[in-house]
Amino acid sequence: MTKHPPQPESVAGNGLLDRRLFLGASLAGAALAPSPAAAEPLAVPPWSLAPGVPFNAYGMPSKFEAAAARKWVAPVNPATPGIGASRTPHHLLDGMMTPSGLHFERSHAGAPTIDPDQHRLAIHGLVRQPLVFTLEALSRYPMTSRVAFVECGGNSGFLSQPVAVPPGPAPDVQSIHGLLSCSEWTGVKLSTLLEEAGVDPRAKWIYAEGADSAGMSRSIPLAKALDDVIVCLYQNGERIRPENGYPVRLLVPGYSGNMNVKWLRRIKLVEGPVMTKDETSKYTILLASGKAWQFVFPLEVKSVITRPSPGLTLKGPGFYEISGLAWSGNGKIKSVEVSADGGKSWAPAALQEPVLSKAVTRFRMPWNWSGGPAVLQSRAADDTGMVQPSRAEMFAERGMRGQYHVNCIQSWAVNDKGEAANVFA
Amino acid sequence: MTKHPPQPESVAGNGLLDRRLFLGASLAGAALAPSPAAAEPLAVPPWSLAPGVPFNAYGMPSKFEAAAARKWVAPVNPATPGIGASRTPHHLLDGMMTPSGLHFERSHAGAPTIDPDQHRLAIHGLVRQPLVFTLEALSRYPMTSRVAFVECGGNSGFLSQPVAVPPGPAPDVQSIHGLLSCSEWTGVKLSTLLEEAGVDPRAKWIYAEGADSAGMSRSIPLAKALDDVIVCLYQNGERIRPENGYPVRLLVPGYSGNMNVKWLRRIKLVEGPVMTKDETSKYTILLASGKAWQFVFPLEVKSVITRPSPGLTLKGPGFYEISGLAWSGNGKIKSVEVSADGGKSWAPAALQEPVLSKAVTRFRMPWNWSGGPAVLQSRAADDTGMVQPSRAEMFAERGMRGQYHVNCIQSWAVNDKGEAANVFA
Repeated sequence: MTKHPPQPESVAGNGLLDRRLFLGASLAGAALAPSPAAAEPLAVPPWSLAPGVPFNAYGMPSKFEAAAARKWVAPVNPATPGIGASRTPHHLLDGMMTPSGLHFERSHAGAPTIDPDQHRLAIHGLVRQPLVFTLEALSRYPMTSRVAFVECGGNSGFLSQPVAVPPGPAPDVQSIHGLLSCSEWTGVKLSTLLEEAGVDPRAKWIYAEGADSAGMSRSIPLAKALDDVIVCLYQNGERIRPENGYPVRLLVPGYSGNMNVKWLRRIKLVEGPVMTKDETSKYTILLASGKAWQFVFPLEVKSVITRPSPGLTLKGPGFYEISGLAWSGNGKIKSVEVSADGGKSWAPAALQEPVLSKAVTRFRMPWNWSGGPAVLQSRAADDTGMVQPSRAEMFAERGMRGQYHVNCIQSWAVNDKGEAANVFA
Repeated sequence: MTKHPPQPESVAGNGLLDRRLFLGASLAGAALAPSPAAAEPLAVPPWSLAPGVPFNAYGMPSKFEAAAARKWVAPVNPATPGIGASRTPHHLLDGMMTPSGLHFERSHAGAPTIDPDQHRLAIHGLVRQPLVFTLEALSRYPMTSRVAFVECGGNSGFLSQPVAVPPGPAPDVQSIHGLLSCSEWTGVKLSTLLEEAGVDPRAKWIYAEGADSAGMSRSIPLAKALDDVIVCLYQNGERIRPENGYPVRLLVPGYSGNMNVKWLRRIKLVEGPVMTKDETSKYTILLASGKAWQFVFPLEVKSVITRPSPGLTLKGPGFYEISGLAWSGNGKIKSVEVSADGGKSWAPAALQEPVLSKAVTRFRMPWNWSGGPAVLQSRAADDTGMVQPSRAEMFAERGMRGQYHVNCIQSWAVNDKGEAANVFA
């Protein structure tokens, strides 16, 4: 092992390497950090000398992984502690799936504790026959599964304010982009239930309402409801978690998070949108002019580098994997490009299979860090041809008053100590 | 809503319906059980009247889902409570993923509590340069993710004994087939690390050893190690759970469960298999002749109906979804056929996308239960052309002394009360 072996050739500025390095080519030149060892090298550690922990009914992460936790900002009013959001620690995760215990939460009045035997789902309004479903009745219908992301419409809204690093805790992947998670969802297609109720031709929208004490509710176009919306009972194989809508929620693939109504209690078929508070004063896109875009549903193509990122300090020059997530509410991720020089040059990242529509896609890019300053960025494109804009491009179009559907490029500056920080590059 | 509407046409005996019923066709004739309702039908439940539960750092399932738990048989010797296995409750799950908290456990001395900062992985033996890796060093290498099942070689071994329902708890999906789970695994390809160590041409096998006090260890052909084996750090997005090998385990896709060595501490490159206790007296396939098949690695094509199954009682005649899991250690599932009349007639089930190699595939089949007796079976085939055998076929080949790699067809008898039980059909 030499300290300074010949380096693999770069494909873009500041040390980006060919993504095909992932496909079995030698890393012998990339200055990694294992130690040479003797032929029988390891002492026997204490945990190998005594029996371990016996079985348990439901497992939990190692006590050494306590940092991998959801985080939230304490509520302004302690009388309403359930109003707010907790965020997924993506900087500590890898892969496509978010473990359910770390799926972000956004609630307007906390998570209700619902007895599934007492819960009912009604479908009514402009239908031939209003229907009420028990959980047991729902469980008899044909099911479908899909891996899909859920993202709060307000995710990444931090980037729409003017200061890159304001006073307080340093902004990081979790605080800026942690209102995104990805699960396998299983349930009954809403179209199946609507067919059974019989849709009146006058119906053009549905109104979906949760059983939380906020009565969280949204209007959804009927065309979407009949397309790919699922009345979900299962998340990542097991019944949905309480904070994610137990015992039943909507999955509205690719649409703003709060349209995926949790603790779903009724769906009313209506002629037009009902103008709930969460589609008028909130969850609309306020423009510089003071006008707002309303009923903008699919979340636009987006990506973020999760590693390196703030809080994860590089330990000396040499090889690292740049890794992150990309997703689009309009379809599949087609490509992700990565830059290590603040957007001067770009190279394509490897996309982890399977690449699924309206799910997150993990991307990976080999990088040989010189030890000097770098600005890391990722730029995703989806199969509809949409490309993630720069922050300047996004605000040139919208102004800076909007905090919803922010999908511009994230920039992390790495300094010569290997520390990363949010910058507006 | 009439009580006895016209029924959809059957595609095989005893009420099996066309799988395309899943693709949007009307279920209006299938005798489902929602209740007709008034136009504004629902009373406000108590949990909608007060704020709910505020945020928590790591979520858990609803208290109403306590039945969805791993189960294990109490150890014969209370001094060694970590010897044995706990099993996944597949009858209560749906989808492709197993939540990590319910992933089966098989351990030979309990789960060691390993400090990741102190843990080391050595690669030595027939290599150019022995190496020792810290977790931090491993984390700098290029990663890959894949969804894959892990199945204990002894899963379903119950079917190799002669009594369908012995005294004691009734055999069910969990007790017979619960040593199978499916996760997204992420880590470094073993081939990458072996390239860096430099494989001596004399090396033809690897020996992999865990840090548990049983020193669980297996021999693996080098060709497999260089093909698709992963040194895993993450399971379902987060760091691997303690009972599944924290902080680092092998994934040996499609091969017997215990070859996926947990708590991995060393890999030694060797000229031939080292004949550990778990590849000689155990985990070999004992034939009627007294001879045994040794080093039979890939788990053969298999499937099981998880719903209906013992413990899940049908509530009256009418429509149900038959749902289950299929998998093959040799590749992708190509087809699953379902029978409701004990194998007299078969019809193809729908396969849930994405169908991934060496992962579980969920299958679904619509069924109109007459209310009379039925024997439900599933029969999977993989893309190598292998087809799941009947129990009689399997034991005609092997005899009944072997309890490993049992992959024959599972039969559930449903009686006129809607109760299911294991039968040897």
